[in-house]
Amino acid sequence: MSPPKNHDIPKGFIAGGVSAGIKSGRKLDLGMILCERPALTVALTTTNRFPAAPIKVSRERLRHAFSIRGIVANSGNANAMTGEQGHADALAMASAAEQATGSPAGSFLVASTGIIGRSLPVDKITAASPNLAGILSADGWDDFARAIMTTDTRPKLASRSLRLKGFGTFGVFGVAKGVGMIEPNMATMLAFILTDYPLSVGRAKSMLIKATDASFHCLTVDAQRSTNDMVSLMSSATGESKARRPAGADEKFLAALTGVCRDLARDMAADGEGASKLITIRVAGTNKDIQARKIAKAVANSPLVKTAIFAENPNWGRIIQAIGQSDVQFAAENVTVKLQGTTLVRRGEQASVNLAALQSAMRAPEIIIDITAGGGKGTAEVWTCDLTPGYIKINAEYN
Amino acid sequence: MSPPKNHDIPKGFIAGGVSAGIKSGRKLDLGMILCERPALTVALTTTNRFPAAPIKVSRERLRHAFSIRGIVANSGNANAMTGEQGHADALAMASAAEQATGSPAGSFLVASTGIIGRSLPVDKITAASPNLAGILSADGWDDFARAIMTTDTRPKLASRSLRLKGFGTFGVFGVAKGVGMIEPNMATMLAFILTDYPLSVGRAKSMLIKATDASFHCLTVDAQRSTNDMVSLMSSATGESKARRPAGADEKFLAALTGVCRDLARDMAADGEGASKLITIRVAGTNKDIQARKIAKAVANSPLVKTAIFAENPNWGRIIQAIGQSDVQFAAENVTVKLQGTTLVRRGEQASVNLAALQSAMRAPEIIIDITAGGGKGTAEVWTCDLTPGYIKINAEYN
Repeated sequence: MSPPKNHDIPKGFIAGGVSAGIKSGRKLDLGMILCERPALTVALTTTNRFPAAPIKVSRERLRHAFSIRGIVANSGNANAMTGEQGHADALAMASAAEQATGSPAGSFLVASTGIIGRSLPVDKITAASPNLAGILSADGWDDFARAIMTTDTRPKLASRSLRLKGFGTFGVFGVAKGVGMIEPNMATMLAFILTDYPLSVGRAKSMLIKATDASFHCLTVDAQRSTNDMVSLMSSATGESKARRPAGADEKFLAALTGVCRDLARDMAADGEGASKLITIRVAGTNKDIQARKIAKAVANSPLVKTAIFAENPNWGRIIQAIGQSDVQFAAENVTVKLQGTTLVRRGEQASVNLAALQSAMRAPEIIIDITAGGGKGTAEVWTCDLTPGYIKINAEYN
Repeated sequence: MSPPKNHDIPKGFIAGGVSAGIKSGRKLDLGMILCERPALTVALTTTNRFPAAPIKVSRERLRHAFSIRGIVANSGNANAMTGEQGHADALAMASAAEQATGSPAGSFLVASTGIIGRSLPVDKITAASPNLAGILSADGWDDFARAIMTTDTRPKLASRSLRLKGFGTFGVFGVAKGVGMIEPNMATMLAFILTDYPLSVGRAKSMLIKATDASFHCLTVDAQRSTNDMVSLMSSATGESKARRPAGADEKFLAALTGVCRDLARDMAADGEGASKLITIRVAGTNKDIQARKIAKAVANSPLVKTAIFAENPNWGRIIQAIGQSDVQFAAENVTVKLQGTTLVRRGEQASVNLAALQSAMRAPEIIIDITAGGGKGTAEVWTCDLTPGYIKINAEYN
């Protein structure tokens, strides 16, 4: 398979994916990322109270931020609610990856995604690991991205590069999956971000939190928080982390990191289970950002708004209904709502609308809803997708 | 049309419904309830921040609990987000009912349900009011119930009777509608409860709050709170409200009132938009009831659980995932989950299950999920329905 187009991969990382036989039909289902040296690694993991075995194993390993060399991830089985055997299986999966790549014990994170409550076919994974380790390459990213897909219809990759005069050129690259059971409150299904920009642990963690808050936290497909969510950030530049950096370098890195995370989050929304449209909801004018986000999420999670958009039906009463149930204090008479740039409600009153033109504008692949709640400085942007018969078909049949 | 079967109507009330031409196809769309005297009336109304015009008018009138003689309600148009004209229309609708029944000005509550943001065809309503007033009768309840239906597939009626030795025989009777945009946080779409049991205003209000909390607040179809929600309680026994009542009478009345409200709420869940199954979720073992309800609602509002049940698929991992995201503190290792009486998770560990028997049990029209979260005394019961292609079809086409 050809290397992903238009993505510069940060120095020091290789990847690949194989079919280990977890999923049917010889689909790619086991992937590996390897760093040529121990990478500085931080991660955010699910807030679900039933974390899966690989999450528990990875959390333990993340206590040593400089010991991580790689990530092994499978799709087709979440290894969640699998008890002590599941924990042992997650450890065995990591161990097989470490042995196959000649890495020290304890140096791999492990991630799983797929159905909850089924035993992990760990023998298939350990059997496939040496072969997988043997094919890791600078061109293996598309295979890795495909190996972590479940109901995703396409691999999800994003990148930015950073040219800092007198300091160097750096890359930020991310791979993600996740199209259902998605409303992250901490992280999202699986997202692996790589860089060769030098970072301290504290800086890496605070930047990952900021970037996640402005990206994966703005995403909802179905308001469901998975047991297996993880977003990790690995930097291969460990040795250079004390180098003197030019003024504003960290801000530029944070912008690049946030850009990668936003690209991935928007792609996840657009590829939401059964989705036919990406929906972007922008809210302004609340007192605080968190209030704007609550309003945006109330609209984004409304199945009535989502089905209306699927039908390309400008039924704005449902947008108003969703705003009104958001538990945020605002004056109804200050609310303005636009759909595809057309004002539907101006200061709490219905506006006159050219319905034919609006209906035609709703045929676009991205629907943008702008809400102004008052005169405050709070803002938010949230992405979701429409609710279609495809969502039900996928989830009724999934097992 | 024949009177509703098996329902004793409390003394003093008559009702009816006609087609005023708001909905197409000569469907019933305008209904009226009339009390032969001013009835003690209390109500709970929506917490949505964009209350519809009829809600605002009714709230104003409810300040005088003994002045209400009747209710006029239409379907096919919510009269919400309709500005000053909508307010004038709601007043005109009430006024037409008052004139047609010879009732004093200000003595009718008004309720509307249907699409948001369209002008109420008030001329059709005022024109139909004299005819409607002329056909009100003791047998008109089925017509009234049909006149307030939107996407409901059947009228919703429930009753209890109360025999209190040495005090009398009383009835509690309710009519409701509501199958979409339903997660009441205060009341539900529309529910009108009638009784001839004597009540004071304070007692009526506190009992309605208690009964609603144990019924309509336990209901969710799609976690959407309407702009038009109202549940009202009218008693025709105003004159007798100071009579000495036997010990325990109020408790028996509250039980009857709660029973009527629960019957209506369960019927609303079973008739949820597109529903093929009623889902009952019972939670026990939390510290407080409110925590049990949060867990139950997290499961009830999970589109993944709802689609799995539509598919008659015992995908219990989704139940666990929903419990785990509920933001309630509990120990995962204490959680037990049963589906149709079959234990799936026992104290946090997967139980061995006869899958064939369970799959067969999932063909039932009611699915019961029992969750024990620990050793506390908190409990809750919540009702919802499955998520089917019918929900999307109904809501994509509705306009």
